[in-house]
Amino acid sequence: MEPNLYIGLVHHPIYDKRREVVATAITNFDIHDIARCARTFGIGGFYVITPLESQVQLVERIVHHWVEGVGSIYNPTRKESLSLVRVSRTIDEADQEISHLWQKEVKRVATGASPHPRSIGFGFLKKLLGDRNHPFFLLFGTGWGLTQEVKDRSDYVLAPIEGQGYNHLSVRSAVAIILDRLLGDRTM
Amino acid sequence: MEPNLYIGLVHHPIYDKRREVVATAITNFDIHDIARCARTFGIGGFYVITPLESQVQLVERIVHHWVEGVGSIYNPTRKESLSLVRVSRTIDEADQEISHLWQKEVKRVATGASPHPRSIGFGFLKKLLGDRNHPFFLLFGTGWGLTQEVKDRSDYVLAPIEGQGYNHLSVRSAVAIILDRLLGDRTM
Repeated sequence: MEPNLYIGLVHHPIYDKRREVVATAITNFDIHDIARCARTFGIGGFYVITPLESQVQLVERIVHHWVEGVGSIYNPTRKESLSLVRVSRTIDEADQEISHLWQKEVKRVATGASPHPRSIGFGFLKKLLGDRNHPFFLLFGTGWGLTQEVKDRSDYVLAPIEGQGYNHLSVRSAVAIILDRLLGDRTM
Repeated sequence: MEPNLYIGLVHHPIYDKRREVVATAITNFDIHDIARCARTFGIGGFYVITPLESQVQLVERIVHHWVEGVGSIYNPTRKESLSLVRVSRTIDEADQEISHLWQKEVKRVATGASPHPRSIGFGFLKKLLGDRNHPFFLLFGTGWGLTQEVKDRSDYVLAPIEGQGYNHLSVRSAVAIILDRLLGDRTM
């Protein structure tokens, strides 16, 4: 069955430390770790979102190396995961690509480390994903997180991962935990 | 209540690509991501295990920067997480430190991407952790994973994270998912 969950790693619009809206730089480890999680949990695609041309080219070079270049021979499991990576200039551009593929409107789900008045729980989103006729686009922020506007324009905002009074996970760890909560085999 | 779970990131003895036993290099992202997970889920301590003196010094320098140096002012949340990091030359050395602290034998739990005849499930380990009178030491391999000998000498081997036929998560993602399965709030 066609996977109906897609993830987006947003590099703009993003808050920085002082809550100013910026474009963050690509982190090589994000691409690898998140692509490997995406492949593990059977995600439809992993969109890296950046408006900066130099950064678009950087992602394309990384993906090319592992999917078609010498990396694909050195480590074929990276080819499997990195072939899920797509690059888009904006969230809307990625959204339109998914909508076009499905011929259906995409439901956007924002994530973040702080609570939001419209937060939904993991169990609720899991149930929504059970309707395999609709595609969902789960957005993760880099830097100091997705802007309020991105959250407000999303169809849903996912509840934060609650720790012991500390909510400063890396985006790589947050993606791993959230995908496992939504799609992992938890019968063990 | 004193946390009774400790984690160890093993850089030796480890398999490489050709299943030869090696010492792997420290990865800066491992230290940060895993320390932040450890702090999020209330772990007792995070042991970075490497026999190489240059690597011991590298970890000490990273930790010093964020816990006591300028990094502690720039980003105090890193201070909170990285203060959980300890460095040990061997698994046994870390083990002894925990035993000494608790005045009790430590139960070792090895992790890995492939099944083991003595594998225990996540639910079972979660139950074991409920006995707050015993410390547990959860070992994660870098490179191509913990050696057979380390697994055989452990008290338990944890079941692998089952994906869609792909088990090549980064150790950073594996730690995040496993800690969340064992200690995360899953009522949402």
